[in-house]
Amino acid sequence: MPEYPTAQYPTALGASSLEKITLLGQDLARDVMGEVGFGELAFWLATQRRPGKGETRVFEAVLAALADHGFTPTAIVTRLTYLSAPDSIQGALAAGLLGGGSRFLGVTEDCGRFLHDALSTADRPVDDELALEIVRAERAAGRFIPGLGHHVHKNGDPRTARLFEIAREEGKFGPHLALFEAIGRVHPQVLGKTLPLNGAGACGAALADLGLPLELLRGFALLARAAGLIGQLAEELRTPVANEIFLSVDLNNRPVPPAGGSHG
Amino acid sequence: MPEYPTAQYPTALGASSLEKITLLGQDLARDVMGEVGFGELAFWLATQRRPGKGETRVFEAVLAALADHGFTPTAIVTRLTYLSAPDSIQGALAAGLLGGGSRFLGVTEDCGRFLHDALSTADRPVDDELALEIVRAERAAGRFIPGLGHHVHKNGDPRTARLFEIAREEGKFGPHLALFEAIGRVHPQVLGKTLPLNGAGACGAALADLGLPLELLRGFALLARAAGLIGQLAEELRTPVANEIFLSVDLNNRPVPPAGGSHG
Amino acid sequence: MPEYPTAQYPTALGASSLEKITLLGQDLARDVMGEVGFGELAFWLATQRRPGKGETRVFEAVLAALADHGFTPTAIVTRLTYLSAPDSIQGALAAGLLGGGSRFLGVTEDCGRFLHDALSTADRPVDDELALEIVRAERAAGRFIPGLGHHVHKNGDPRTARLFEIAREEGKFGPHLALFEAIGRVHPQVLGKTLPLNGAGACGAALADLGLPLELLRGFALLARAAGLIGQLAEELRTPVANEIFLSVDLNNRPVPPAGGSHG
Amino acid sequence: MPEYPTAQYPTALGASSLEKITLLGQDLARDVMGEVGFGELAFWLATQRRPGKGETRVFEAVLAALADHGFTPTAIVTRLTYLSAPDSIQGALAAGLLGGGSRFLGVTEDCGRFLHDALSTADRPVDDELALEIVRAERAAGRFIPGLGHHVHKNGDPRTARLFEIAREEGKFGPHLALFEAIGRVHPQVLGKTLPLNGAGACGAALADLGLPLELLRGFALLARAAGLIGQLAEELRTPVANEIFLSVDLNNRPVPPAGGSHG
Repeated sequence: MPEYPTAQYPTALGASSLEKITLLGQDLARDVMGEVGFGELAFWLATQRRPGKGETRVFEAVLAALADHGFTPTAIVTRLTYLSAPDSIQGALAAGLLGGGSRFLGVTEDCGRFLHDALSTADRPVDDELALEIVRAERAAGRFIPGLGHHVHKNGDPRTARLFEIAREEGKFGPHLALFEAIGRVHPQVLGKTLPLNGAGACGAALADLGLPLELLRGFALLARAAGLIGQLAEELRTPVANEIFLSVDLNNRPVPPAGGSHG
Repeated sequence: MPEYPTAQYPTALGASSLEKITLLGQDLARDVMGEVGFGELAFWLATQRRPGKGETRVFEAVLAALADHGFTPTAIVTRLTYLSAPDSIQGALAAGLLGGGSRFLGVTEDCGRFLHDALSTADRPVDDELALEIVRAERAAGRFIPGLGHHVHKNGDPRTARLFEIAREEGKFGPHLALFEAIGRVHPQVLGKTLPLNGAGACGAALADLGLPLELLRGFALLARAAGLIGQLAEELRTPVANEIFLSVDLNNRPVPPAGGSHG
Repeated sequence: MPEYPTAQYPTALGASSLEKITLLGQDLARDVMGEVGFGELAFWLATQRRPGKGETRVFEAVLAALADHGFTPTAIVTRLTYLSAPDSIQGALAAGLLGGGSRFLGVTEDCGRFLHDALSTADRPVDDELALEIVRAERAAGRFIPGLGHHVHKNGDPRTARLFEIAREEGKFGPHLALFEAIGRVHPQVLGKTLPLNGAGACGAALADLGLPLELLRGFALLARAAGLIGQLAEELRTPVANEIFLSVDLNNRPVPPAGGSHG
Repeated sequence: MPEYPTAQYPTALGASSLEKITLLGQDLARDVMGEVGFGELAFWLATQRRPGKGETRVFEAVLAALADHGFTPTAIVTRLTYLSAPDSIQGALAAGLLGGGSRFLGVTEDCGRFLHDALSTADRPVDDELALEIVRAERAAGRFIPGLGHHVHKNGDPRTARLFEIAREEGKFGPHLALFEAIGRVHPQVLGKTLPLNGAGACGAALADLGLPLELLRGFALLARAAGLIGQLAEELRTPVANEIFLSVDLNNRPVPPAGGSHG
């Protein structure tokens, strides 16, 4: 029987004793279960600070905005993995989340970080002049501004306006959202065309205004998507399409010679 | 440019057009964002039916009960994977969820299914007599009853009593919870000892009473755990322990000869 | 600075000191690199016993048989995940492997285990009489025999005959392969039709004859597939099809009302 | 029954017809199984070009060098995930591979890319003068040179010398290895101290000299590690340590108050 080293791993998260379970310093059964909503709890777990009602409403609006976008690669992946390994729900969910990288779920994080960095080096409060400088600097450096543009909602992403509204109602419209909105106003002067502020970018701005850790902004998008992927699995159970998708690819394969030539 | 086949993949989840995004048949921006909590939305996505307030409260109590249990294998795995590949939050989260299998997160699903099967074949309403028959039958078959027993909370899991209470308050104490509670009362007559009804099992019973799909009960445990794992990552960012854990293993490795002998 | 507990974790795998790296008790640089092929090493790592040349040849034939089958769900998943998160090769590979479950890669393991169990309870050497009893017993129990049947190669899976041949050439045609072959001869008498012995099943029989751990037969299929999935990624880099696959699904979504009705 | 679109997805990998299975344009059963080793096949799949004997030997030496390094985070993660979800070998393997990111398996890719970029912009053949310029430029830019330094093998990583030797024996010591070796000779003049050329970096150089796609260098490290992780699982089956590791963490947790204070 090995001796274990003495107390090394501090945590404020879950802990148990014979009679009691605590979470975040609370009595889990008495003070969390039945008292704390799931969005509120997710916020609390990530910040170790209980959010107020307004913060929770903005946070849950962001999660709703990101939960599901139909047949995205992540949704297709989860359904195909479930088709192939139906014994492992955790594998199907994990496989889908692995698509939550730089391209499809990354805008939220990229936009939050971009706004945060811009604000960190700004020498004055947010206004259109500041936004204009920032857009000009990015243009000069040949970089795109995260959160600007959408391949479907070319006239405006309905999630963005609504998130602005909710954040204002709750007094949580902070400098990240303000700068993002200002960029939306001024960028046509520099870029010569009007692009919509997309919802994923607005979500990043809102999460940053809520004080959530920038390193984990993608994590919240993944949490939202986890709920969406369970919805995809539930629908797949009722109305399966994964085998159809698989066959639509497999039956349309076209054998071609190897690129490097064959030395066989 | 390939021609695509005609409409094949029905879905009631996310869909977009130029002006509008719908989710579950709702206008996402107007009717979901700011109006629907995250737990409520997760339930709705999984059932395609909007839950009532009482259902949402029970459901969120279950998610709270399962979100985090401290340094479980899943939490350790997420922290170690983040240590090793900090560029991929999605990888760290997915790796942790992959531990949500039969042993550590499986009780919720196993218990929900067990109760459901027992109820399906029962020829009368739930009472102690029925529970006694079921416990006797399992004992005779040499099987354990899922949800019975806990390695820490030997005098009772505080989550179980609380979940019973919340379900009763909301009028959602259905046959699965009733049978689970009855098993808690009668099993000592058969097994000769008193075991606690554990929280994970109670969660499975509650989810089954809410009418959630049995195939996905593990999925809800995974959703809850996703929030917990983001909490673990946030804490790891603030107070890192993963490298310490890694070294505590690596520095204590003990080289031994290969089991099969070496033919080298 | 914590004190670590004393030597707890025995291992015969990799270990390092200032001057030397050992693997499986060998000097890695001197005795493994340049001396041991990759298939041979994988066998050695799994059994901690160095295989002979004949064992390696059979093992590598199995890996070749399982490496890639074109646009399987696992291949599609890896390509779509790479599309969505191109920054994380490990995520794309892991996502593909997660499809290696009971349905698409499971036959190898199921067949190996089935033959092993049948041989464990047999009271005499393998012959057609024994195979007939086994097929009859499975039929009576309403169970399918793993490894029997193929949706494409209805007249015989070319991998099976070739694997029998290689195993015979190397003196590694043991009882598992013998029983599998006998089942191939006798099953029409019981089932009333002739089904091919599929390659995945033959691979399971061959791996079992090589003495590889039954719990890990699926692991070898996954190792083979890992090489195949890297091939899929390499081809995706040269000739991308994932975006086309994604669009072929997304553009053919068909919005339908939620199954449970909307209470919104 | 939907109509599928016409041939869209070209591939030179696996394809099947009633009588025959092809892989890379070869007859799988006749020309690959029993004829092509696993390392050779993995190379062929990734390049669609059959490697020569010398290329295969260098490639397999690289895979051997990267297969297992004992109780790394990836190995611990695979064992813990198997403990937690023993029903899903694919999940345990995938979870371990997800640690193959920038920090623990990334050097191979980073070094290969670094050398490739340096060679692309060099205006003359590799010699010590060129290496000196490169080291000076990196130093001036405040960047580390990938592949330089090792926390254990401070006097030299035995894998590096051996890989140089094997590549020379096979006539595969190309410009990437030559530049890497030259950097090893000249860097003390610039850095004022002698650092070892590590094995992971040498592997990246060797893979680049073999003409393997730079985007997938990490993929080969992952393939090697897949074999190592199956070895870890096999050892875990024989000599379990995962539960011990889990307990060594869980029993040494130390509850602390939440960072953000509790508003409960």
